[in-house]
Order: sequence, then structure tokens, then C-alpha cells
Amino acid sequence: MWAPSSLASSQLSRLGARDLRGAAAVAPAAPAPQQLRLGCSRRRAQRVVAMAGSGKFFVGGNWKCVSARSASSALHAWGISLLDDSFVLKNHCSFVYPASSLWELALLFLNGTKDFVSKLVSELNAATLEPDVDVVVAPPFIYIDQVKNSLTDRIEVSAQNVWVGKGGAYTGEISAEQLVDIGCKWVILGHSERRNIIGETDEFIAKKAAYALSQNVKVIACIGELLEEREAGKTFEVCFKQMKAYADSITNWADVVIAYEPVWAIGTGKVASPEQAQEVHAAVRDWLKTNVSPEVASSVRIIYGGSVNAGNCADLAKKEDIDGFLVGGASLKGPDFTTIINSVTSKKVAA
Amino acid sequence: MWAPSSLASSQLSRLGARDLRGAAAVAPAAPAPQQLRLGCSRRRAQRVVAMAGSGKFFVGGNWKCVSARSASSALHAWGISLLDDSFVLKNHCSFVYPASSLWELALLFLNGTKDFVSKLVSELNAATLEPDVDVVVAPPFIYIDQVKNSLTDRIEVSAQNVWVGKGGAYTGEISAEQLVDIGCKWVILGHSERRNIIGETDEFIAKKAAYALSQNVKVIACIGELLEEREAGKTFEVCFKQMKAYADSITNWADVVIAYEPVWAIGTGKVASPEQAQEVHAAVRDWLKTNVSPEVASSVRIIYGGSVNAGNCADLAKKEDIDGFLVGGASLKGPDFTTIINSVTSKKVAA
Repeated sequence: MWAPSSLASSQLSRLGARDLRGAAAVAPAAPAPQQLRLGCSRRRAQRVVAMAGSGKFFVGGNWKCVSARSASSALHAWGISLLDDSFVLKNHCSFVYPASSLWELALLFLNGTKDFVSKLVSELNAATLEPDVDVVVAPPFIYIDQVKNSLTDRIEVSAQNVWVGKGGAYTGEISAEQLVDIGCKWVILGHSERRNIIGETDEFIAKKAAYALSQNVKVIACIGELLEEREAGKTFEVCFKQMKAYADSITNWADVVIAYEPVWAIGTGKVASPEQAQEVHAAVRDWLKTNVSPEVASSVRIIYGGSVNAGNCADLAKKEDIDGFLVGGASLKGPDFTTIINSVTSKKVAA
Repeated sequence: MWAPSSLASSQLSRLGARDLRGAAAVAPAAPAPQQLRLGCSRRRAQRVVAMAGSGKFFVGGNWKCVSARSASSALHAWGISLLDDSFVLKNHCSFVYPASSLWELALLFLNGTKDFVSKLVSELNAATLEPDVDVVVAPPFIYIDQVKNSLTDRIEVSAQNVWVGKGGAYTGEISAEQLVDIGCKWVILGHSERRNIIGETDEFIAKKAAYALSQNVKVIACIGELLEEREAGKTFEVCFKQMKAYADSITNWADVVIAYEPVWAIGTGKVASPEQAQEVHAAVRDWLKTNVSPEVASSVRIIYGGSVNAGNCADLAKKEDIDGFLVGGASLKGPDFTTIINSVTSKKVAA
């Protein structure tokens, strides 16, 4: 049986090109290819699987909760035949909710979202989590206080958005200062829904990231390409453009986790193959090496998001440059989210 | 001494052109002018001061809280000489906070915004409020749960923004369904900060209003002109354009309060004179009569916002078409907000 608590120290001898966060010396890295190739990782020759930076896996849950009212409407519109015990239902129009059983769905109807959040928090509080994983959950703004007041300190809390500068007279917005005040240590920025539905630009998102970091709010910085961009062979171009905007604004990378979320895999049930995800993660790491620094490239964690679930997380986690996950619908089911968190153990098998 | 509880019934004989919400019959109204004139109210000839619709005054507080961190920065940047015992400080760059005394400011530094909200809620819970006023406060999203759990039921809670349609996978947004779930009965829409800083269009705002209403979330629908628009003589044109967008989307006006907030008076310390406010309120009511219905025109409440404070509220409240207030900075001071709520009594003096 693998002892998870030994991961960080055992990594010291495994990291190769990576140094731990804060280490001044950098071990010689394999030469970076001048031209990135699909399927090419600069650490391809390594036989062991290691994790970046702190040596900890990182799993975030983006809670896009639905209310009892919406769930009820969905049931009415779709009929019971659409229930599925193994995954999260998603309405193509807009919404997501967990429906692992009729009983759970009924509970959702009866109690509404606030009670659903309570149930989810209870499940997470009771779960046994591997120690070598940083775990963060991101409830909608109005539930953050409830979650902060009831969730174990083992799990940190993130917001799903933040204002671009100092807080103040911006009706409807939440500032980084307010997140600090309420004990919310992270924020998800650049999610594809905010890019493609709300209309936030690369530069606006990057500015948000820089301001949040200046207030000691850590950032889960999302990137990812649309389906048509992937099909046009523009995956790297798009991701690098988004990365460049972050890099132009961010100076403190120690508090940043990069989340690669291909838009075609978010909430669609389509998941990137482990090879597809690894390919982009490796390319982004190479981009960081060339355009920011080898230290940042080797220390920043790059996590994958897009229809991650309890069934596919282990194979994804085995990939060298996948340092964790940003989980959507599956994070609304305590047991499934726990499985995803604990998929860190699959790195041991891979190694 | 005026007995506030008798206001609603006493209004029945005073309303003239106005009928109460839900009344089928409409008393003959004075002919609407084809061309609106500044200073012209269709009810100018009336000698009494009445309130629209339910006969209740309406006062909302838009809580744009600042964190302890920002307050501290402000003190550092500005020095103690900027403290003012009589009003709310506003940084031209961005933010607002109450500073009625050094002690209060110190408390803000020490305890942060969450504790500041607690203090404000305690002040409101202890206040004696006139009964003929609907009172609503709008905390930032992250404090709504705290306020709902601690504030007297006498005061309802509003959000400062809401998503435009059914809730779901819209990272960072809060849906109307979620507001219902958390017991939040109102939402402020169309605030100038969301129009002019965030970039929300008339149509987007109106669509938000329609969806919120469809979910039984009541709407404080803001309108108002910029300084340059007023100076160019376009006040009515701008307000009517904003009203038209609402009217194109809204069918249920019973749950709408219109807030006229001239942008040049928001947070600037410049307040519209009672005559300036009355002039626009009367024009908007006339517009509703012509473009929606006489019933809606006579029943909808039109409230004023823009540097309302404890000192100027009584004179504003006396005006016939001013049915209440949407209060910014002054709503962060319990005693001042109470004075503004109770300015309903000045209508008695005027009558």
C-alpha cells in the first residue's frame, strides 16, 4: 500500500527538471523543443510520474448548483426516463444537477439548493481524503458564507468570479477584498462560460487575476479552446494567446493554478482523452518555460477540467503533466468528488 | 400627529387619477400632454400628496460595502483630515464607506465587512420604522445569507444583480431561482454602474427583469441619464429609451418599482433638487400612461436615488411623484437610513 504522506519527499528525487516551489536551484531540464508537437512532452523520457510545485495534487470543484424549481421544471420537461445513475444530467439549454437516484432528486425538490449544499458539505466533511491533495470548492457567491461556516478546514473555498480592481461602488460585483473578508482564499477566473457567454476578454480576465493575487486571493486561471478551434488545429494558438494575457499581468505565479478546460468537453459528457489532455498540458508547460521562466514552468500546477468524473479520473491522473482537476457536475456528488480527489493514488501506480 | 397606518385608506379619497394596485376601474385622468415639458406634472393641480399603487412609500438601501483592507488603504492614502462626521466618504476612484466617527472607522478596520454588516443589521433591527413604508436592503451577494439569517422580517432583502435566464452552468452568476431559494425577494437591475461600467445594455437589463419577475423575484428597475446627457437636454429621451426596453419585456408591473437615479448624482454628493427629481418622475409616469397603461402609470412606484441622505430626504419626499428612495452610501448608516425611511411622514406635512 502506498503511503501518500511520503509523496512530497519522495518526489524530491524524482522531479528531474522540476524544482519545488521556493527552491532556488533548478536541475538541468531536457532541451525544450523549438517546435511543439502533438503528443510531445519535454519530460517524455522520464519514467516516473511527478507533480509540479508543492508536490501536491490539486482538485477543485466548481459548484454550478441548480435550484429545486429548475430541477422540477427539468423533470417535468424531460420525464423520468432521463435520469441516469452514473453521471450528471445536463440540459443543453443551461443547467446541471446531480441525479444519482430518484431519492436524491426527490430530496433536491423538497429541500432546495441551500439544503442541497448542506448535504454536499456533510458528505465532504465525512470523506476520507488523501493528504497529498489541495482541495478547493467553489460555491456560487450566495452560498459561500454557508459553506465557510460548515465545511471542514481541510477544504478551502473559492469564488467563481471577482471584480477586476479595488472593491467599491460596483453594484452587483464582489471584490477581492470582500473575498478575503469572508475567508474565501481562491477564485476561478477565465472560465469558458465567462469568456464565451459573459464576454470577458483575455486582458480583462488577466487583470482580474493580477488584482486578486495582489490581495492574496489565489487564482485558478482557466484556459481552453472551442470545438471549432480544435478542429481548425488552433488549440495551441488559442491556449498560448490566453496564457500570454495572464503572463503579461501576473508576476506572482506561486499562487496560480492553471486549469486547461477544452470548451468542447465542459458539461458535454465528452472528455478529452488522457493523451489529448497531456499533450496540451505539456505544451502549456513548455510555453511557460520559454515565455515566463523554467522555474515557473516546473512549479506551476496544470489541472484538467471538462467532464471529469469518478470513472475517468484515474487514467487522466496518471499523465505526467496533469497535476489535478477542476471538476464541474461530478463535484456536486460527494462520493464521486472524493474519488476524483483520491485519484492522486493512480500516479503511484503509473510511477 | 399623523397616524401612518391610516395612510393607505386615506389615500383612497385622495388619489384622483391614481387607482390602487389591482383596482379595475380607473378614474378619469387629466389629459396627457403631447409634448412633455420640464416641470410639468399631469397631477400638478392636485393639492394633496399621494403615493402610487399600494399606498406605501418604498425605501431601498444599496449596500456597496468596502472591506477593512480598502478602508485602511484609504486612511493611509488620504489622512485623517478627510473624515467627516455627517456623511459617507467616497473615493473618486471607486469606493464608499461610512465614517461617522473615528471610533466607527476604527471598528471597521478591526472587524472587517462581515462584522460591519452585523453592526448595521443590529441597528436596523433596533430601529422604529413607520409602517407605511416597504423597506428593502441589497447587500452584496456574499452577505445575503448572513443578512437573511439576522435581519428582522420587517425588512426584505434584495440582490444587486441576477442572471438573465434560467440558472445553470454560468460560472460566477447567480440565478433568480437561487435568489428565491435563499429567500431574497427583490433584485436591483439597470443600476448605472452595471450599465456604464459593466456594459449591460437596455435590452439585456430588461430581459433580466422579465426573467426575474417570471420567477417571482420583484424588480427595482433603475433608469437615469449621464451628466452630459442632461446638459445636452436629453434627460427625457434617455429615460424614455430605458423605459421602453423595460416595457417591451415586462408584463407584470405589479412587482416593479422604478428607480430614477440621475448618474451625475450617484455617489457624487450632488443631489437632484426636489423639483428636478419631480420633473422626471412626472414625465416617466406620463410616459407609462401613454405607452403602457393608465393603470400601470397610476400604480407603479417611482423612487429617487442619487446622494439621498438624512438631510435632504424630507424635501424630496414631499414631491408628489416621489414615492420613495433608493439609497446608496447613507444606507450604510443605520440611523440615517432610518431617518430616510421615516421621511414618509413629510408627505403628511406637504398634504
